[in-house]
Amino acid sequence: MKSYIPYSKYCDFPIENLPYGVFSTNKTPIHHIGVAIGDQILDLHEIAHLFAGPELINHQHVFKDSTLNSFMGLSQKAWKEARETLQSLLSVENPLLQNNGDLRSRAFVPQSEATMHLPAKIGDYTDFYSSIHHATNVGVMFRSKENALMPNWKYLPVGYHGRASSVVVSGTSIHRPHGQTLAIEGAPPVFGTCKLMDFELEMAFFVGGSTNLGDVVTADNANKHIFGFVLMNDWSARDIQKWEYIPLGPFTAKNLGTSISPWVVTTFALEPFKVDNYPQDPEPFPYLKHSDNFNFDIDLTVDISPKGSSVATNVCRSNYKFLYWTAKQQLAHHTVTGCNLNPGDLMGSGTISGDTSDSFGSMLELSWKGTKPLTLRDGTQRKFLQDGDTVTMTATCAGDGFNVGFGSCVGTLLPPKEM
Amino acid sequence: MKSYIPYSKYCDFPIENLPYGVFSTNKTPIHHIGVAIGDQILDLHEIAHLFAGPELINHQHVFKDSTLNSFMGLSQKAWKEARETLQSLLSVENPLLQNNGDLRSRAFVPQSEATMHLPAKIGDYTDFYSSIHHATNVGVMFRSKENALMPNWKYLPVGYHGRASSVVVSGTSIHRPHGQTLAIEGAPPVFGTCKLMDFELEMAFFVGGSTNLGDVVTADNANKHIFGFVLMNDWSARDIQKWEYIPLGPFTAKNLGTSISPWVVTTFALEPFKVDNYPQDPEPFPYLKHSDNFNFDIDLTVDISPKGSSVATNVCRSNYKFLYWTAKQQLAHHTVTGCNLNPGDLMGSGTISGDTSDSFGSMLELSWKGTKPLTLRDGTQRKFLQDGDTVTMTATCAGDGFNVGFGSCVGTLLPPKEM
Repeated sequence: MKSYIPYSKYCDFPIENLPYGVFSTNKTPIHHIGVAIGDQILDLHEIAHLFAGPELINHQHVFKDSTLNSFMGLSQKAWKEARETLQSLLSVENPLLQNNGDLRSRAFVPQSEATMHLPAKIGDYTDFYSSIHHATNVGVMFRSKENALMPNWKYLPVGYHGRASSVVVSGTSIHRPHGQTLAIEGAPPVFGTCKLMDFELEMAFFVGGSTNLGDVVTADNANKHIFGFVLMNDWSARDIQKWEYIPLGPFTAKNLGTSISPWVVTTFALEPFKVDNYPQDPEPFPYLKHSDNFNFDIDLTVDISPKGSSVATNVCRSNYKFLYWTAKQQLAHHTVTGCNLNPGDLMGSGTISGDTSDSFGSMLELSWKGTKPLTLRDGTQRKFLQDGDTVTMTATCAGDGFNVGFGSCVGTLLPPKEM
Repeated sequence: MKSYIPYSKYCDFPIENLPYGVFSTNKTPIHHIGVAIGDQILDLHEIAHLFAGPELINHQHVFKDSTLNSFMGLSQKAWKEARETLQSLLSVENPLLQNNGDLRSRAFVPQSEATMHLPAKIGDYTDFYSSIHHATNVGVMFRSKENALMPNWKYLPVGYHGRASSVVVSGTSIHRPHGQTLAIEGAPPVFGTCKLMDFELEMAFFVGGSTNLGDVVTADNANKHIFGFVLMNDWSARDIQKWEYIPLGPFTAKNLGTSISPWVVTTFALEPFKVDNYPQDPEPFPYLKHSDNFNFDIDLTVDISPKGSSVATNVCRSNYKFLYWTAKQQLAHHTVTGCNLNPGDLMGSGTISGDTSDSFGSMLELSWKGTKPLTLRDGTQRKFLQDGDTVTMTATCAGDGFNVGFGSCVGTLLPPKEM
C-alpha cells in the first residue's frame, strides 16, 4: 500500500495505521474527527459524504460529530468499511480525493496546526492490573516473594472502576496533589503534599458497540466490542494510595488525572503485530477463554525530562505483550455479572512491566520503592517524580517496511495548586 | 404554606418538598423534567417561561431538557430561585397557574400515568462507606471486634469509584449474576450463579455545579455542590465480592446494577430536618471540617416481598443520621487530590446501618453472615435474597404537620439470565 501523502518508513502514521482522533484548529475551533496520515490529519467532517459503502451510507453523520462515540457505537463491519474507504481514498492509485484540489485543500490539516482533544466522551473508565510482572513486583515489595500474587490474580483479571471525569488528553499538565499519608507507621496520618508521585505506563482500549444490563460478553465474543487502543499514563500518588486503599481500593490517589494519547489505533491496524497470548496456568474458566491470539508486540518507552531541560532520559522499555490477561478477557470479566457497556468506555491494562529491571512501568518498581534511585542524563537523581518533570510515553509496532505508532502520551507534573 | 393541589398530611410530596424528576407518558414519550406535588407532576417543560427571576430568565431552556444536568449545572442561587418560583406557582394564594385552565390542564400529569426515568445522565458514580455501624459490623464479621475499623476509617471518608452505566431507576429488575466465588477456603474458585445476593440501604446525592481538574472543594465550601438526595439500593453479590475485592476493591460484585429512587429531594427541602452531626474523634483535618450541621433526620425502611406474595415484611428501620461522615465531608475528600466534578455526578453514602440489629442496612448484617435467618411474614426464611424477592426502600422526614418523603426505591431480583 502506498499513499500520495509522503512520510518516512519510521513514521507512526502510515496508510497501514490510520488512527482516529478529535482535533480543532485556530481557524476551525469546533471539534472535528480526523485520521492521522504522515504529518497530516484527514478531516472526516469534510469527506463524510465519501463513506458510501452499504454499512456507512446511512451513518455518514457519525463523521460530523465532535467525538468518536457514535462511530464507536456502530458495528465492527462498519469500522472495517470505514478503514477500507480511508485506505482507498488515501491510496496513490485513487484519484478521487488526490486530484480534487478544492476538496483536498479543505480536507487535510497539518498536525502541527491542530490541537488534539479527548477522542470520545468517556462514559465509564475501568483500570485492570493485568501485568504479571507488575503485580508480582508490587506484591514482593509490600508483602513477600512467597505471597506476591493474591490468590485471585491468576483466576480473573483483577480490575477496579476509575474516575472518567479526570481522564485527560496528552499534553495536559497535572498538579502534584494534597492528601493524607501515613508518614510514620503506627502514628496518626499527616496532611500535606504527595511525596511519592509516580507514573504508570499503560495502554487502554476504547469499547465499541453497547450491551444491556444483565448481558454477558464472553471472551470469544469480545472482539466486536474492542474498537482500538491508546497509550495511558495512570498518574499515581503512592503515599496517598497506601494509606487510603484498604479495603475498597485506590480512590483519590488516582482521580487526580489520567492521561491518554489522542490517536486511537484500531484493532485492525494491530492485526499484523499479533503474537502468542501469555501462557496461562491454571486454565481460565470458559467465559474467559478465546481460541485466537489477542496479544500484540507493541514496544513501549517512557522518558523523563526535568524542568527546563531539553535532555530526556529513557527510564523504561517495555512491551504490551507482557500482559498476562488479554483485552478480550478483561472485557469478558467486566461483563460477567451483567455490567452494561457503552461506546466510548475506556479500559486500562494496568501498568505494563516486563521481566527485567529496565522494563518496569512505574517509578515505584524502577527505583524499587525508592531504594535504587535512577540517575538522569542531566545528573540529577529520581526515586519518584519531581515537580517540573515531563513524562513522555511512546508505543510503536515495527512492521515489515513500516511502523504502526501511537504518537506519544505526554504530561508535565506541576507543583501543587494552593488550596 | 398551602397548595391548591390537594394531598394528605402524610403525603411524600407536599409544597414543602418539590423534588425534581424526569418522566414520560404514553402521550408524551419525550422525557420531560417535572416536580412532584401531591399525586401530580408539574411538567416544567410546559411552564419553563414562568421562571422569570434574575437567575433563571436567561436559563429557561434548562427546564426543557430531558435530564436535570443543565439545571444542576447552574448556581445554588438559581436552584433557590427555582424553588421559590415553584412554591409561589403552586401556592393557593397565587392565581397565575391555578386559574389558567388551559395551561393548568397541560402542566399537570397524574403520577400514575407517568413512567419515571433516571433524573440525570450520571457522568461518574462514587460510593462511600460512611456508616460507622455498618463498617464496624462488617469488620467484626470478617476480622475481629478489636480490629473492626481499618486505621484510616476515622481519618477519611473511605470510598471507591463505582460504575455509572449500571445505575438504574427504581422499578428496574436485576438479574442474579454469574461469577467466580471461593466456595471452599483454600480450594480453587468455582464458577456459577451468585449464592449470597444482597441489598444495601443507601442514600446518595447528586452533584451540582462543576470544578476543574486540580481544584479542591473544602467541606466548608461543599454546600454549593450538593444539589439533592435520592434513595439507593446498591445490590451486592457478597460471595463474588469476597473473592474479587483484594487488593483493588469491589468490582463485578457491584456493577450488576444499582437502583435509585426517581425523585431528587433538594437540600433546601431537607433544611428543617437538620440534626447534629455525628460526633467525630479524632478531629478531622481542616479540609474536612465544616462549622454547620449537615446531618439529617430521615427515617429509612426496607421491605421484602417474596415472589407472587402481596405481603411485604419490614426487615430494617434505619436513619440517615447514623452516618459518621457528612455529605460535605464526602465531597471534600473526593476532591482533595484535585478530582474534577460535573453536574449529575452521583455520590452514595454507603450502607446506612443503625446501632440496633433491626436497623442494619443489608442482609449480610441482618442475618449476621447467614447465621441468623430472618423469618418473613409468609413464613419463609431469608439469609440472603431469593429469586423473585422485591426489595422496597423508603425514606421519610416527619415534619411539623407535613412529611418530606422520597417515594420509594423498588427492585425485583430475577433469576440469572442464560449466558
